[in-house]
Amino acid sequence: MSEYRGYTGTSLAFLKDSKVKVGDSVKITEDITYAGIVMPRYEHTDDNHIALKLKSGYNIGIEVNKIKKIELLSSEKIEKKSPPKIKSDQSLPKILLLSTGGTIASKIDYRTGAVTPALSAEELNEAVPELAEIANIDTEVLFSEYSENLEPEHWKKIAEKLDSHAKSDYKGIVVAHGTDTMQYSAAFLSFALSGYPIPIVLVGSQRSSDRPSSDAALNLISSMRFIIESNTRGVFVVMHHNESDNLIVGHVGTRVRKNHTSKRGAFQTIGNDPAFLIFDKKIEKNLKAEFFKQNQYNPKLNFDTHVALVKYHPGYNPKIIDFLIKSGYKAIIFEGTGLGHVGKKIYEEVKKANGDGIFMGMTSQCIDGRVDMNVYESGRDLQELGIIPLSDMIPETALVKAMWALGNSTNVEEMKNLMTQNIASEFSD
Amino acid sequence: MSEYRGYTGTSLAFLKDSKVKVGDSVKITEDITYAGIVMPRYEHTDDNHIALKLKSGYNIGIEVNKIKKIELLSSEKIEKKSPPKIKSDQSLPKILLLSTGGTIASKIDYRTGAVTPALSAEELNEAVPELAEIANIDTEVLFSEYSENLEPEHWKKIAEKLDSHAKSDYKGIVVAHGTDTMQYSAAFLSFALSGYPIPIVLVGSQRSSDRPSSDAALNLISSMRFIIESNTRGVFVVMHHNESDNLIVGHVGTRVRKNHTSKRGAFQTIGNDPAFLIFDKKIEKNLKAEFFKQNQYNPKLNFDTHVALVKYHPGYNPKIIDFLIKSGYKAIIFEGTGLGHVGKKIYEEVKKANGDGIFMGMTSQCIDGRVDMNVYESGRDLQELGIIPLSDMIPETALVKAMWALGNSTNVEEMKNLMTQNIASEFSD
Repeated sequence: MSEYRGYTGTSLAFLKDSKVKVGDSVKITEDITYAGIVMPRYEHTDDNHIALKLKSGYNIGIEVNKIKKIELLSSEKIEKKSPPKIKSDQSLPKILLLSTGGTIASKIDYRTGAVTPALSAEELNEAVPELAEIANIDTEVLFSEYSENLEPEHWKKIAEKLDSHAKSDYKGIVVAHGTDTMQYSAAFLSFALSGYPIPIVLVGSQRSSDRPSSDAALNLISSMRFIIESNTRGVFVVMHHNESDNLIVGHVGTRVRKNHTSKRGAFQTIGNDPAFLIFDKKIEKNLKAEFFKQNQYNPKLNFDTHVALVKYHPGYNPKIIDFLIKSGYKAIIFEGTGLGHVGKKIYEEVKKANGDGIFMGMTSQCIDGRVDMNVYESGRDLQELGIIPLSDMIPETALVKAMWALGNSTNVEEMKNLMTQNIASEFSD
Repeated sequence: MSEYRGYTGTSLAFLKDSKVKVGDSVKITEDITYAGIVMPRYEHTDDNHIALKLKSGYNIGIEVNKIKKIELLSSEKIEKKSPPKIKSDQSLPKILLLSTGGTIASKIDYRTGAVTPALSAEELNEAVPELAEIANIDTEVLFSEYSENLEPEHWKKIAEKLDSHAKSDYKGIVVAHGTDTMQYSAAFLSFALSGYPIPIVLVGSQRSSDRPSSDAALNLISSMRFIIESNTRGVFVVMHHNESDNLIVGHVGTRVRKNHTSKRGAFQTIGNDPAFLIFDKKIEKNLKAEFFKQNQYNPKLNFDTHVALVKYHPGYNPKIIDFLIKSGYKAIIFEGTGLGHVGKKIYEEVKKANGDGIFMGMTSQCIDGRVDMNVYESGRDLQELGIIPLSDMIPETALVKAMWALGNSTNVEEMKNLMTQNIASEFSD
């Protein structure tokens, strides 16, 4: 790591003048005095802030111009460590650990205190020594991004990598991933890799590994245990079930949602109990049916992002739909109200979209429960206008599925078939 | 009711030719044979369907061209009933019941079986005889709409009506309302009528009163009990807590969400237990603080709909933000990922929106939990780009609050103050 990683211009000059570098413990006096560790900067929109990690674990940005005094408390030598050697026990099951970034793959360096998605799968493996006793783990870094920056292109890269291992001797594959958009990636992999022969587990962490409450190690260990013990196929998200450490769960990748910003048990299966409960080596199975509805492995890795998610609300502007039509969108997933409704005032635009051959699917902003467009006249009218009810598919999964279906079909009828067919447990039985 | 209410063109001619009218029991043979009651049509996009209510309670539309045979089973005379007389007991507390439509105010006529938002508050009152023993109820119909068709103009009409009763001798006011957008209306009233002197209760039903599982009567009774017994002020949503009839709850109007499409216990308070538990006459209070943060009644009834709700996701098109900027939008509420993030690829558009003086607030699509834009560099960057974190305000409430704040402030700084100030318990303490 560079001694001034991420610093440029004003802030770089200030650090150099003050003889302070990344990783140093300092006291900075502004209006009040902060003590902490100078962190590297990874994203920035200006060059006049110093990033400081406080003892609480939180990071703050301090404007260079406002600093009255900076005092060096202690400085540590930066040593380039050679990559750690991982024990390998050939008698254990083989698992591939792919790293894509996120908090779970963060905090490469306790010294700097920086939370950055820079930890390689190998380092991740090494950071949790228990892993070597569970499985014989190969590691690979796909990319290092926080998941809010992931795009459908990244989904495809992960899918291609997994596809390349479809005929391997791995017992399963773990994908370390940021939690922000993990459910979107899980949904894409579920559709793209229909029938994949071994379990795929996405794992993340809600608290970085430098915090005492970190869930990183236990989630990672549990994802390996899950692969070895579950004897299942499909795409799952393995995370803490609650704030305690006694229950980790495996969620169906198309039915899971991040339902809390910060809790360790943020992920929830919508409309059902989680598919698997993981108590150390003991696995309890709730999943009633096969994850993939077609047994044969049938990868379809394309996508098309001309899909909009329209969350309807009072005061919604019909001109936004007009804009989508004019911009060449080919599919709209509505997050309607209640059982699957939108207000009369956008009926004209819905009619127009239908006339233009745009696929329209209905989900509910209630998130839980099924849409039913036969109960009220408005639901029936919307069906006549071409909107397809999508049962209890959750909105984010429907969006991802629509991008996938659009990329892998040649006309709107083929797309409708894909959208209404249960491919990867996106519809509850 | 007209004998052919809502029918025009082809379907009207067909009914007349067949000597069948609205309310008649018929057997219709298409590919299969249906028996049911011919319903009036309230919304339609064509003139060639007959609406039929089946015995199951569900309605279907049958295309006239496909009908092979129609058989009249029984016909009933349409009588105009005189409005029922309501008992009035002057010793009981006075409550005003306003009707705006929705399922709770539906099913005017068991004979036709039609679910329509046409029941007046007076008829609603009469349909539940227990009400007359609880309170001395005045009734008024504001409008009769399913709530997916309600617009901010409707919110304002409700607010104006309530404002006109601010100095009345009512113990409280009940607003019968469709459940689809009830949370949006509740949020608007909470902000617009800050400090309102008596409780305002929105009440709805998830099952129409012709179904055995209807929650209409009990929710209505409980809303009256709540007003009489709760001794509180604020805007609340009173609904079933679960599928059983033994617990009705009162939710804070700015913290409530319809979280299930069909369950009677669809409404939930986000991040907390419901404010009040209502067991018949017994009320248990969970609410820790006053609903309104300012004691004085200070109505501000304006709104401005130049506010967009942007739910960020992988594959989100930055051009939609461009479109909003060009279309004169003055505020954007982001439903970001996790702790309050959006991907780097829309940073340029965010910067531009900020430069144009557009208010930008951040909520989370996780719905539960607080946004915290100080943990990760991306959150700090987005704050530098002008996005204001909105703590644990739920996205729909933030949208409504932004419309309200925009309509009641003259510049972006004033709006920022309103948006970050706790006015009606929209932020948890």
